[in-house]
Amino acid sequence: MHMLLHHASWPEVEAYLERSKGVLIPIGSTEQHGPNGLIGTDAICPEVIARKAAEDTQMLIAPTFNVGIAQHHMGFAGSMTLRPSTMIAAIYDWVASLSRHGFDRIYFFNGHGGNIATIQAAFSEIYADRSLGREGDNRRAVKCRLVNWWDFKPVLDYCKQTYGSAHGSHATPSEVAVTYAAFPHAVKHAVMEPAIAPSGRFTDAEDYRAKFPDGRIGSDPSLARAEDGEKLIALSAKSLAEDFKNFTTS
Amino acid sequence: MHMLLHHASWPEVEAYLERSKGVLIPIGSTEQHGPNGLIGTDAICPEVIARKAAEDTQMLIAPTFNVGIAQHHMGFAGSMTLRPSTMIAAIYDWVASLSRHGFDRIYFFNGHGGNIATIQAAFSEIYADRSLGREGDNRRAVKCRLVNWWDFKPVLDYCKQTYGSAHGSHATPSEVAVTYAAFPHAVKHAVMEPAIAPSGRFTDAEDYRAKFPDGRIGSDPSLARAEDGEKLIALSAKSLAEDFKNFTTS
Amino acid sequence: MHMLLHHASWPEVEAYLERSKGVLIPIGSTEQHGPNGLIGTDAICPEVIARKAAEDTQMLIAPTFNVGIAQHHMGFAGSMTLRPSTMIAAIYDWVASLSRHGFDRIYFFNGHGGNIATIQAAFSEIYADRSLGREGDNRRAVKCRLVNWWDFKPVLDYCKQTYGSAHGSHATPSEVAVTYAAFPHAVKHAVMEPAIAPSGRFTDAEDYRAKFPDGRIGSDPSLARAEDGEKLIALSAKSLAEDFKNFTTS
Amino acid sequence: MHMLLHHASWPEVEAYLERSKGVLIPIGSTEQHGPNGLIGTDAICPEVIARKAAEDTQMLIAPTFNVGIAQHHMGFAGSMTLRPSTMIAAIYDWVASLSRHGFDRIYFFNGHGGNIATIQAAFSEIYADRSLGREGDNRRAVKCRLVNWWDFKPVLDYCKQTYGSAHGSHATPSEVAVTYAAFPHAVKHAVMEPAIAPSGRFTDAEDYRAKFPDGRIGSDPSLARAEDGEKLIALSAKSLAEDFKNFTTS
Amino acid sequence: MHMLLHHASWPEVEAYLERSKGVLIPIGSTEQHGPNGLIGTDAICPEVIARKAAEDTQMLIAPTFNVGIAQHHMGFAGSMTLRPSTMIAAIYDWVASLSRHGFDRIYFFNGHGGNIATIQAAFSEIYADRSLGREGDNRRAVKCRLVNWWDFKPVLDYCKQTYGSAHGSHATPSEVAVTYAAFPHAVKHAVMEPAIAPSGRFTDAEDYRAKFPDGRIGSDPSLARAEDGEKLIALSAKSLAEDFKNFTTS
Amino acid sequence: MHMLLHHASWPEVEAYLERSKGVLIPIGSTEQHGPNGLIGTDAICPEVIARKAAEDTQMLIAPTFNVGIAQHHMGFAGSMTLRPSTMIAAIYDWVASLSRHGFDRIYFFNGHGGNIATIQAAFSEIYADRSLGREGDNRRAVKCRLVNWWDFKPVLDYCKQTYGSAHGSHATPSEVAVTYAAFPHAVKHAVMEPAIAPSGRFTDAEDYRAKFPDGRIGSDPSLARAEDGEKLIALSAKSLAEDFKNFTTS
Ligand code: NI
Ligand code: NI
Ligand code: NI
Ligand code: NI
Ligand code: NI
Ligand code: NI
Repeated sequence: MHMLLHHASWPEVEAYLERSKGVLIPIGSTEQHGPNGLIGTDAICPEVIARKAAEDTQMLIAPTFNVGIAQHHMGFAGSMTLRPSTMIAAIYDWVASLSRHGFDRIYFFNGHGGNIATIQAAFSEIYADRSLGREGDNRRAVKCRLVNWWDFKPVLDYCKQTYGSAHGSHATPSEVAVTYAAFPHAVKHAVMEPAIAPSGRFTDAEDYRAKFPDGRIGSDPSLARAEDGEKLIALSAKSLAEDFKNFTTS
Repeated sequence: MHMLLHHASWPEVEAYLERSKGVLIPIGSTEQHGPNGLIGTDAICPEVIARKAAEDTQMLIAPTFNVGIAQHHMGFAGSMTLRPSTMIAAIYDWVASLSRHGFDRIYFFNGHGGNIATIQAAFSEIYADRSLGREGDNRRAVKCRLVNWWDFKPVLDYCKQTYGSAHGSHATPSEVAVTYAAFPHAVKHAVMEPAIAPSGRFTDAEDYRAKFPDGRIGSDPSLARAEDGEKLIALSAKSLAEDFKNFTTS
Repeated sequence: MHMLLHHASWPEVEAYLERSKGVLIPIGSTEQHGPNGLIGTDAICPEVIARKAAEDTQMLIAPTFNVGIAQHHMGFAGSMTLRPSTMIAAIYDWVASLSRHGFDRIYFFNGHGGNIATIQAAFSEIYADRSLGREGDNRRAVKCRLVNWWDFKPVLDYCKQTYGSAHGSHATPSEVAVTYAAFPHAVKHAVMEPAIAPSGRFTDAEDYRAKFPDGRIGSDPSLARAEDGEKLIALSAKSLAEDFKNFTTS
Repeated sequence: MHMLLHHASWPEVEAYLERSKGVLIPIGSTEQHGPNGLIGTDAICPEVIARKAAEDTQMLIAPTFNVGIAQHHMGFAGSMTLRPSTMIAAIYDWVASLSRHGFDRIYFFNGHGGNIATIQAAFSEIYADRSLGREGDNRRAVKCRLVNWWDFKPVLDYCKQTYGSAHGSHATPSEVAVTYAAFPHAVKHAVMEPAIAPSGRFTDAEDYRAKFPDGRIGSDPSLARAEDGEKLIALSAKSLAEDFKNFTTS
Repeated sequence: MHMLLHHASWPEVEAYLERSKGVLIPIGSTEQHGPNGLIGTDAICPEVIARKAAEDTQMLIAPTFNVGIAQHHMGFAGSMTLRPSTMIAAIYDWVASLSRHGFDRIYFFNGHGGNIATIQAAFSEIYADRSLGREGDNRRAVKCRLVNWWDFKPVLDYCKQTYGSAHGSHATPSEVAVTYAAFPHAVKHAVMEPAIAPSGRFTDAEDYRAKFPDGRIGSDPSLARAEDGEKLIALSAKSLAEDFKNFTTS
Repeated sequence: MHMLLHHASWPEVEAYLERSKGVLIPIGSTEQHGPNGLIGTDAICPEVIARKAAEDTQMLIAPTFNVGIAQHHMGFAGSMTLRPSTMIAAIYDWVASLSRHGFDRIYFFNGHGGNIATIQAAFSEIYADRSLGREGDNRRAVKCRLVNWWDFKPVLDYCKQTYGSAHGSHATPSEVAVTYAAFPHAVKHAVMEPAIAPSGRFTDAEDYRAKFPDGRIGSDPSLARAEDGEKLIALSAKSLAEDFKNFTTS
């Protein structure tokens, strides 16, 4: 049964805990996504896909961690970022809170490549508490897992087939399509110049903006269609449901 | 025109900044709200009211800061908390990000009494940067404002008239009513025993649970009705629209 | 019996702990108080009143926490401030120290409105340790309480009667009067222009100084008289003695 | 002229700054000082001596930094400590505040050996800001100085002559004598067993208490006499006045 | 010309800076490497390879960052770890120091997979300073790069050919071979049971030790030979020299 | 038997722990050492001497902590520094790691005067954990010791005899001689002007460079000879071996 932590009451969560110790946290970013992409794309995608996955699986979904590591996007209006040290502290507290109630399988379902390193660092920060502990310590063990919504093979295959070399790595047509499927009123139109954005490495916000003047990297998000977004949601959700089940029952 | 930061593109935010330097951040908590209240109540209320207010005002709404200071609720399953030091760091980064783009009026619209002290401390942390600076410093000035959704006189009056002494201070019928109006499918039913919960002070989670065994303080949330929630949303939104306008044009 | 922690020996404190687990910390600020007010006003007031209260009550008084949150006063020479994050860490350590010895009722007697939010945030930081803990944890419970010296009804009434609309909210005649009663040699004279200072909100130091050019807010501290200070001390001390007793025996 | 920052008004401090950029911070500790010593000894000594020195020198005295590094004394009731990381943050903020107003010679007059390392570390933390800066940086240079009240040769000589091998290193007759001179009503009597306490190294609180069961190290503080305290105050104050003058005019 | 920062004088570094703004930091870990591997393996490998690469390239080599993220190895004697938050602070300071002198290309040459996430998070922490800055800011831009010694194709190919499915992912024969080549006296012999260690995921130290009882993951390090280590050093060094040159001249 | 932690395997460390709970950490700095001194001098000296001492004593040597507190040297190319707060966190983690394995005597063998305060502060930070703990706490006790390589009387005597008033306090001929003995290929030649460098106090990097234009303080390091370095190594190592034994068996 579909269950949002924030729409549940505490007795409902207590009852859930008798059946499962697993919880999913959608985690994203609030950052520019090119001329026609939503600033909330990376938070919206994992949230929408998780809700879909939860429709016929036992899965408790926590609120979305919605501002992540986006320092490189700060040259574009509306982008927001945490410093990695802040994000580690916040993830530490979220996990400590859930662990307090007995959750011991925390699944981070991620929508932003730039978050990956810091989330993994946060896991090490959390594990280090017990790893540096000693006998008699009463800290509870917890297992964390990080999966990106596009990590599943069916999703990768679909993107490759549908967008080919126009997929790119930021403001991709696939992620924009997912948001269009979720929020049809937010569909935007823009002419992409050049059609496919440049690719490459970057460091800070100034460097990023100089190299990628409209925010895109390697992509043509004008290819984004809500109907493809629906398919992507379904594909990713199916894999997620299975992966979450394996994780929480392992 | 109604505008969510996360549903906008960066050029749209850039255009907005030419008209206004103000932005609103709904800020709440993820914590137990008694036997029939949603764990997300305190995040849902300001978010829903802000969207209503934005319908016919110029107001940009940022993503919701959804986990706050709820250490005292940790005795009830599903509650989540930040430590105040973490929350200060996170608010600092959110404001630094928005300030970077030129926003200089940051309006925190709050749904949780337990957040107030820490949000105000965060404001002082932010202001201290400039206040400890010296001539020639190039930090930008920013003004922050904290308002709770129930602070407006029409809202207070309505609650008093409608709920009288059954309003209480946590898991109140008014906040539960707002969430029922927003999410009718999440309406829950529970018998309240006693009808009106006990009142008093509390310290940590153990102390809280001992004094308030079902999570409520001084309230009877079984009085919550979606139709009253609609009225509360409308009343609070009207005042908010005005207050936000005053703030951002001052 | 009157007892200062810093004038006691450790065996005397050990003996006190057999009778009471309560301790009072005067907490203030070091910041400008207008043309004729002492920079130490907010630390002096609670310290002086607490000593008076302790004359015929069992009350152990810790050293005064004398620099607080005064970022907004940094435009006036001599003002000192902590960042809120620093103050939280310091209060955490003070309470951890006292708790280590068995004190479990820590009464913060405050002289500065600007401290309130950060002190409350510090309490949450302290409580969060236990609230996020788990069974078998051996952290001791501690209860903290925050009271401002002017919070008691007799004090509020006296101020209203004596100063009326000239009381204001910073560099008030009442707090200046208390310091004049305590330190007659430090009485200062200054012409106030205008007689009653302007009122309003403020953000950082630059903003504050622009709005309140001589440091006062809404007050006429030229009305401060040592003899009124004596009365204020007596009134606040009487209420404090009672409140402290209630707190430490609850 | 004798001048306490906390007894001055901001215009008085502004006037002082036209004559001098130097300020003195008494810094001590709140920790056990054996069977007949005051817990506040290490804060009282530098404060009392500085006030004496200021009688006929131009010297502005800030409030006393009264809780320091005393983790090793936590086995004795009433001792309080900061963690070094907290103390560094607090000293950083105190100096940043004073520097903001133009003070560029900050003299820390210390009463506690256990503080020395952390105060010096704090100086490096402060200096590192500018040292890691680059051209065009607008941080102000500030010079900090750390002197213990017993560092001056006349003081050392007096202690040696008066107490010889009974002086020891903690809860010494000299420091106790200074507090007795300052607070005659706080004189305490206790039989010392053995007459001279053991000496040696120590690590944490448990280790300390095991080695020094009544808190003293190598001393016989029953030798403390108020009249010797007067002399010590005078000797140290005379040297301090000179040293402070040299420092602030260099 | 081969140049170690720690074997240079400051005038030599000053001269180097006129030719190049690039510097390499070997970064590793101090953690168990199975029954016959050196605890310092991950620090030794990048250090040795970098020195080889520097023999005929212009490359300044900083001291080795030798303790990294190894919380998962803490179940095995001798392993050492930083918490990620500590490591981020330390890398921040290292880069700030080098940037102060004008180095603007900082190449982290890494020997430990477990460091990757935290190093990347540290880069974001560093870049965020400028990215959150504003016009007129005088922070210098710096570019950081992270490369693992085994990332180069010739190295990967050699490992595949030489060790096949016995290579594994921790305590690999290739890394052990490199240390044997560098320190022949430290060659150790141990029987591996089973020959190829198990593979899989892990969380904290307890979990790791339960799954990988002798510390290896998927490898048979008894295959390590000094002569293969020599070849690996040569292959990696050649690629490194080229990559470093490209990076520092880009 | 001579034993480097980083050249040992975990079973070897496990075996060592059955014989001894003591470990030595060489700790230094990476900072300018005048016209002919190595930037790594302060890390090299304790490392080289410890290895010598370990030749015929039971002593486990950890990797060298190689970047310390050198903010005052940042005016000279190649110097690197940690902020003291970072160094405290790092030392805390190093000790926590070693303590986890059962090491309870941690000997810091130091090569840099500027590190002393921060290392001692770090010890207090570590001890404070237990000192603020309470009954039932399961933290392990650990004893830390800080010794500088030049602290031993035979070393001091040798320096006095050999260099007299040309020894100075930074970039001394003795420390340079030790590095020349260790790394003959790194011997450098430079004319010292004046022969003996000026002496005095300093604050930040700008102040330091203004007072000590070539980096030396009070020394003539052109007197450094590799053969004297050999003797210094031998003298210091002999004392160290004895002192380490006393410490670890006490
Ligand atoms: Ni994206
Ligand atoms: Ni609520
Ligand atoms: Ni006041
Ligand atoms: Ni003392
Ligand atoms: Ni390895
Ligand atoms: Ni040196």
